[in-house]
Amino acid sequence: MTKRLSSLLLQLLLLSITAESSSNRIRHVKPPIRNGEPGTKPYRYETQYFHQTLDHFSFTDLPGFEQRYLVGGLQRWAPGGGRPIFFYCGNEGDIEWFAANSGFVWESAPLFGALVVFAEHRYYGKSMPYGSKEGAYANAKSLSYLTTEQALADYATLLTDLKRNLSAEDSPVILFGGSYGGMLAAWMRLKYPHIAVGALASSAPILQFENIVPPETFYDIVSNDFRRESVSCFNTIKESWDVLESRGQTVNGLLSLSRDFNLCRNLNNSEDLADWLSSAYSYLAMVDYPYPSEFLMPLPANPIKEVCKKIDGLDEGSSVLDRVFAGVSVYYNYTGSVDCFDLEDDPHGMSGWDWQACTEMVMPMSSSQDNSMFPTYDYDYSAYREQCIQDYGVKPRPRWVTTEFGGHDVRTTLKKFGSNIIFSNGLLDPWSGGSVLQNVSESIIALVTELGAHHIDLRASTKDDPDWLIEQRETEIQIIKQWIDEYHQERVASSSMSGAAMM
Amino acid sequence: MTKRLSSLLLQLLLLSITAESSSNRIRHVKPPIRNGEPGTKPYRYETQYFHQTLDHFSFTDLPGFEQRYLVGGLQRWAPGGGRPIFFYCGNEGDIEWFAANSGFVWESAPLFGALVVFAEHRYYGKSMPYGSKEGAYANAKSLSYLTTEQALADYATLLTDLKRNLSAEDSPVILFGGSYGGMLAAWMRLKYPHIAVGALASSAPILQFENIVPPETFYDIVSNDFRRESVSCFNTIKESWDVLESRGQTVNGLLSLSRDFNLCRNLNNSEDLADWLSSAYSYLAMVDYPYPSEFLMPLPANPIKEVCKKIDGLDEGSSVLDRVFAGVSVYYNYTGSVDCFDLEDDPHGMSGWDWQACTEMVMPMSSSQDNSMFPTYDYDYSAYREQCIQDYGVKPRPRWVTTEFGGHDVRTTLKKFGSNIIFSNGLLDPWSGGSVLQNVSESIIALVTELGAHHIDLRASTKDDPDWLIEQRETEIQIIKQWIDEYHQERVASSSMSGAAMM
Repeated sequence: MTKRLSSLLLQLLLLSITAESSSNRIRHVKPPIRNGEPGTKPYRYETQYFHQTLDHFSFTDLPGFEQRYLVGGLQRWAPGGGRPIFFYCGNEGDIEWFAANSGFVWESAPLFGALVVFAEHRYYGKSMPYGSKEGAYANAKSLSYLTTEQALADYATLLTDLKRNLSAEDSPVILFGGSYGGMLAAWMRLKYPHIAVGALASSAPILQFENIVPPETFYDIVSNDFRRESVSCFNTIKESWDVLESRGQTVNGLLSLSRDFNLCRNLNNSEDLADWLSSAYSYLAMVDYPYPSEFLMPLPANPIKEVCKKIDGLDEGSSVLDRVFAGVSVYYNYTGSVDCFDLEDDPHGMSGWDWQACTEMVMPMSSSQDNSMFPTYDYDYSAYREQCIQDYGVKPRPRWVTTEFGGHDVRTTLKKFGSNIIFSNGLLDPWSGGSVLQNVSESIIALVTELGAHHIDLRASTKDDPDWLIEQRETEIQIIKQWIDEYHQERVASSSMSGAAMM
Repeated sequence: MTKRLSSLLLQLLLLSITAESSSNRIRHVKPPIRNGEPGTKPYRYETQYFHQTLDHFSFTDLPGFEQRYLVGGLQRWAPGGGRPIFFYCGNEGDIEWFAANSGFVWESAPLFGALVVFAEHRYYGKSMPYGSKEGAYANAKSLSYLTTEQALADYATLLTDLKRNLSAEDSPVILFGGSYGGMLAAWMRLKYPHIAVGALASSAPILQFENIVPPETFYDIVSNDFRRESVSCFNTIKESWDVLESRGQTVNGLLSLSRDFNLCRNLNNSEDLADWLSSAYSYLAMVDYPYPSEFLMPLPANPIKEVCKKIDGLDEGSSVLDRVFAGVSVYYNYTGSVDCFDLEDDPHGMSGWDWQACTEMVMPMSSSQDNSMFPTYDYDYSAYREQCIQDYGVKPRPRWVTTEFGGHDVRTTLKKFGSNIIFSNGLLDPWSGGSVLQNVSESIIALVTELGAHHIDLRASTKDDPDWLIEQRETEIQIIKQWIDEYHQERVASSSMSGAAMM
């Protein structure tokens, strides 16, 4: 891996991770995405564009924009046959990357003769309002239509149009999504039941808002993932922050830290290095897959185990910082090809997710003193808000998501309302704590795997898939089949009843 | 009634009725509302204001506005007791008028110890963005946030805030609404199930869009209401349009028509008179109540029967136009106090509903050759669109309502999705044809009364209420009681289950 690519990835990672340090810089944990080149393209699809309305909820006179979507399976598509449409709700990144990393959708579609559509989220990839990324991201005004409700309305409008154009009015739509895309899939099923009959929401933290789950949840889970591999590994990491900070305060401390961590540029403060380290741990927890993968970085199977092996395995005399450096090198430099590490980061660079985090996606995050291996950090909404005003000129609406989509007391609300949603989660995934982990009703169900990580079920099958993963995917296919069968049965029943009523 | 008041009412009526004539002027049938003074105020409430967000779905930097709402029952309110909140979803008019005309809400609330809230719809009454009606209605830009989704989000935001301020998080909310307000109540239950546990949607034509019901439905029902009283009455009205048009083309025809119909100003064309007549018939069908009422106009019990008595009862030699004039005088001048009738109408005056009809609320309306007593008219969307562009500088989105809220194939969609909605309709009401008249599921049910008119069940009880109406209201109260009981049971069950899960 070249230094430049590594830097690109780092930039994104750093932009997106919450500072747990005492620093005032507010950053936002987000699902791991990669905005760079769209990755490999192992699946066959056509790229199309749909002329989309910029503001669905007002009649302000605004320019439309071209929304990109990918269509696969057209060669087996028969209009009017009632075959399903598998629709992936694109999240915060280039849609080609999600298409490349959601093999389950591609692999299961042929079982149903389904059309596959991957729709890109507005303001990401090539789906830019105002003609370009520069135009779309120019300022708070141009960004103001980057909201979740507008994205869902895009999908609703696109699907309605697609079904009409494909003579597919009788085709049930199944929604898919992982991470923020999974939130979109679940919310879309709830808000647009007339457009989609069911949703597979994988690793969707729809409860990671306000005080629905404790703010420590995320970092506690990351920490547990390390502790379960090795208590000493957990302890070494937990100790390292103070060591790092003290070292940064010594004469030539930052210089020696820069050298020891093989950084391309000398550090200005030790917090940047702390952020870099904690990003690695968080992302490792998300992608702690049981087989080698390249979702964010090229990694071995069970990467946390490998990291802890390095941390624990150095000679007895090794320092805490030597150990953590050896550990994170598994994440940042598994291939061994990195010359030096570049922490360069422009905190004022506009990234779409940062905007969303500063407007609607306000997810409180703390790091607890006892259970977390990260520096203790108490969520401070006032500081968060001030930073958003300073960085983007926008005030967050921290209560809006639960007003618009719910979340509090979700099992009472949805027990007799709504249907056909799978919330799938792996408990290694730090986002799982903010998702739905218990069945809500007969058809709003939680599929929980003890050893799963971030939306592993949506990934392509591999020869190394463990049995529990194979079974999980089989269950999902069975449930989706049931949704589709029921849809066709109900349509037949409704139309015969309507006929009778007309006589 | 003074001439001026009569003129005010006429203006509203005329603004709101579809031209069935061959004229190119497009008007919009709407639920009958009165924007003038708010009517009597028989119920006790406090008037409050809530600082509301103008655009819930973008982060454009816009001024907020003060939304008016009325609160009753505070004297019996006990915070934290889990008692319900009865919430009326204000429709297109002054909220005090809806409060005065929705006696059922006030009368049933004490049975539950419920708080009563009537919330005003943005851009109506005193809930004006941009500081005043002049500011709010200045142009298409200032009006652009007058949409149904924004209004629902207002209600969601207001309710969330109210519940927090009243320590009423455990209070189930029951939604009420009639006509467009009924549509809002039903849609709100579907879109915000976490905020309200059920909705009584009275006379809510949620299917009066696109081709879901035939466009002739509305006028066919009006016509049937007349035919069931008297075939000769129906025939006289049906004949009258040609007579009127011919007479208007004769020398001095308009002058003599103006005199015969006792108009305050001379006619410029016979179409204005035709519009005035057909408005009366349509509104008569809506308010064909079995007891004397003053909802739109002071009227006798069963007013259509009275109109037809006049039309049929004139001397044998009476002309068709003499007969229809005698008939509509029951509607426009039942008290006999009108000096002359003022048809004055400014088709370019901005009315909120006309804006809504030109943007989202696009309801196709035709008048059939055979079943309608009105002039034959085929719905012409292109002409409708052009008129909206000309009048308001805005393009309608005729497919948006069904994309956002559904409607097609509603029984398949909602059979296993959604719960706790009553669609109540009286079959005399011409809007009933666009509503839900069959049960969808066990808890999305249709209450249909053969002899009911426009949201009669929401009106205050009277000593003349027929048995079917008393029974209908009792059924509604029983169902609402069941929703509330189930809500409390489910909360208890959920919290005990969560407790168990945490152990």
